[in-house]
Amino acid sequence: MEKRPFVTKDQLEAIAEKYPTPFYLYDEAQIRARARALNAAFSWNPGFREYFAVKATPNPAILRVLAECGCGLDCATGVELLLADRAGVSGRAIMLSSNDTPDEDFRAADARGAIINLDGADMVDCLVRSLGGRVPETVCCRVNPGGDFESANGIIGTPADSKFGMTPAQLEEAFARLATLGVREFGIHAFLASNALAPDYYPRLARLLFGMAADLRARLGVHVGFVDLSGGVGVAYRPEEEPCDIAAIGAGVRRAFEEVLVPAGMGDVAVFTELGRWMLAPAGALVTRVIHEKVTYRDYLGVDACAANLMRPAFYDAYHHVTVMGREDAPCDRRYNVVGRLCENNDQFARDRALPETHVGDLLFIHDAGAHGFSMGYNYNGALRSAELLLREDGSVELIRRAETPEDYLATLVG
Amino acid sequence: MEKRPFVTKDQLEAIAEKYPTPFYLYDEAQIRARARALNAAFSWNPGFREYFAVKATPNPAILRVLAECGCGLDCATGVELLLADRAGVSGRAIMLSSNDTPDEDFRAADARGAIINLDGADMVDCLVRSLGGRVPETVCCRVNPGGDFESANGIIGTPADSKFGMTPAQLEEAFARLATLGVREFGIHAFLASNALAPDYYPRLARLLFGMAADLRARLGVHVGFVDLSGGVGVAYRPEEEPCDIAAIGAGVRRAFEEVLVPAGMGDVAVFTELGRWMLAPAGALVTRVIHEKVTYRDYLGVDACAANLMRPAFYDAYHHVTVMGREDAPCDRRYNVVGRLCENNDQFARDRALPETHVGDLLFIHDAGAHGFSMGYNYNGALRSAELLLREDGSVELIRRAETPEDYLATLVG
Repeated sequence: MEKRPFVTKDQLEAIAEKYPTPFYLYDEAQIRARARALNAAFSWNPGFREYFAVKATPNPAILRVLAECGCGLDCATGVELLLADRAGVSGRAIMLSSNDTPDEDFRAADARGAIINLDGADMVDCLVRSLGGRVPETVCCRVNPGGDFESANGIIGTPADSKFGMTPAQLEEAFARLATLGVREFGIHAFLASNALAPDYYPRLARLLFGMAADLRARLGVHVGFVDLSGGVGVAYRPEEEPCDIAAIGAGVRRAFEEVLVPAGMGDVAVFTELGRWMLAPAGALVTRVIHEKVTYRDYLGVDACAANLMRPAFYDAYHHVTVMGREDAPCDRRYNVVGRLCENNDQFARDRALPETHVGDLLFIHDAGAHGFSMGYNYNGALRSAELLLREDGSVELIRRAETPEDYLATLVG
Repeated sequence: MEKRPFVTKDQLEAIAEKYPTPFYLYDEAQIRARARALNAAFSWNPGFREYFAVKATPNPAILRVLAECGCGLDCATGVELLLADRAGVSGRAIMLSSNDTPDEDFRAADARGAIINLDGADMVDCLVRSLGGRVPETVCCRVNPGGDFESANGIIGTPADSKFGMTPAQLEEAFARLATLGVREFGIHAFLASNALAPDYYPRLARLLFGMAADLRARLGVHVGFVDLSGGVGVAYRPEEEPCDIAAIGAGVRRAFEEVLVPAGMGDVAVFTELGRWMLAPAGALVTRVIHEKVTYRDYLGVDACAANLMRPAFYDAYHHVTVMGREDAPCDRRYNVVGRLCENNDQFARDRALPETHVGDLLFIHDAGAHGFSMGYNYNGALRSAELLLREDGSVELIRRAETPEDYLATLVG
């Protein structure tokens, strides 16, 4: 699919006059459109709720937009619960999906009435201890079926190598114990693949989890209130990739639901999702300006952003499409490495990338950075994290996070 | 080489009573010993100076210890220059070794009398522009010879794939132009391999750069004041690796010096190094406590640190040795994955690692984390960066950076 920026060069230059590059820019219209598409795809399920993965884009202004679209929040830590507070989200609209969880995070989630998702069988005791012997009415457990996980096109995940979740046998034990302790409503959660473009990932996962839910209900008599498909639905970072058809995915999950849960008398089970990447990645970009050109053994464009602002290319060798603003339709007849300033050769946003001729002063739009972009930023080399801006539906631009200053960087030093 | 913690379990438990885990602990005695060994290895060179790479361990308390040992500071950015200010280091004791440099960093370095190292031929104009048409008396240029770089045991770096430096032809042009502009003293800098354990890395690099220096002096008549071998000397992260013999490395550089520079009448050239990793990695550890045990398809130890505190295992799949405190001499007859709490399966400090039997409450000492450890920390999942502590030579422990708080994390949010 052709990748077009959601702003024009003139718009971006006007924004950059007020907010110096680099900065993140998010597109409210697209965030709302994606939430609508997801809600529509699962509208057959009355209890459906997307729990947006806060770690993807931990900014309360974004979270508020999502909450207005009916989304809940998937929080991984106590600090992310504070972001939920800031966004005005509480109660069952929060899912604490964490692992290796400290007691205080269980208490913080419980105090907010959040749903707690237990990552391991050992966590039952931790939860009980954390809450002074009490258990919440509702508890979710995260399952890991082991082995490989396959789509129609082959292996897309290896749960056996994943640190997450409990075995199916442990899940049954945990449910039984929790029921004895007083839990009334159960959920099942699993995350078996990351950034999966395979259209059958969610439907296959749903079928697996629906089967477990029906089985556990039959064996233990417990009430399964929801199945959480977690994240994993991918985005097409490369122009040659096909974006996921969320309506088709929703329909595929529906078929599994109607074939497995409805016959088991469990048509009231709610389906939950935690789609940080799918929801936000395409709705955000890192905007940076070329400040140097260098030709040695390759042609380099040095920009004013670096891996401190967007780590995915350095960390995962991830592809992010780059548009040179104002040259959207020019032939890509040059090849460049687009690099940042860290003393780290991995600090390259693109290597040997076909781009139009580009010069100092040009603005670059780095696509699909709206999820796991700013949130994975660091301060290596004393680099500072950038501002975040929200392009409102009315065309106005709102500063939703200021850029870090040297004072922020130095704040924790003693002496 | 056997890996032993530089503290005992009792010492560490006493420290942990005052400063909750996780935290970084640095060993002043070892820092000083390593600086002494490095200075001794190059004592044959009257102008020798280690410019410690601030990015490795950007804490002014550590930088002050190094300055007391005669070290200068290699700064990559304007913010790292502020750390030099805090450490009381200025003038020629600072080297600005950066790339893709913004003008304001040239000005900030010049204002401090620092030596400026130019990464690209295009940087000559940037420097002149930044300083209002003026040039400093001393300028260093970073060279990239291209191709592969070999030690006696094969290729250890591929400079042609590196974004750093200028070609030898560009180096000559840059020197000629800078001389015309009024520069009186030149330096040559190169970084061709990272974490090299090959004992001939520095000597081979030195021979190459010394040859270039003699050649440029002969062709252009310029005064080469110093050759900066940059970083790259590695540390033995794995017990089965042999640590670098810094005395032998110094002697190898001396032979190249005496065979190349002395006959050229350049026996006054100073040798500089930028050994962040070698200097500090073994002198620092990440200390963390086991808070969960989980058995699924593998045995997991969940700790209270995560990749936010030490990213190298997740980022580079790097090995860091782990000692279970109090069981230093117990047989390593169990195998564990040591994991943190991020929703990121890469967040594992060790995978399938042979360790003694370990339980909740045990303290783990993660070795060789003193460089590129804390400094690469991030806040993914709302995780907070830890405190840093300095174990003084007299056995006292000083807090040199407080742990981040949620307020720090939330500080840049607007609205």
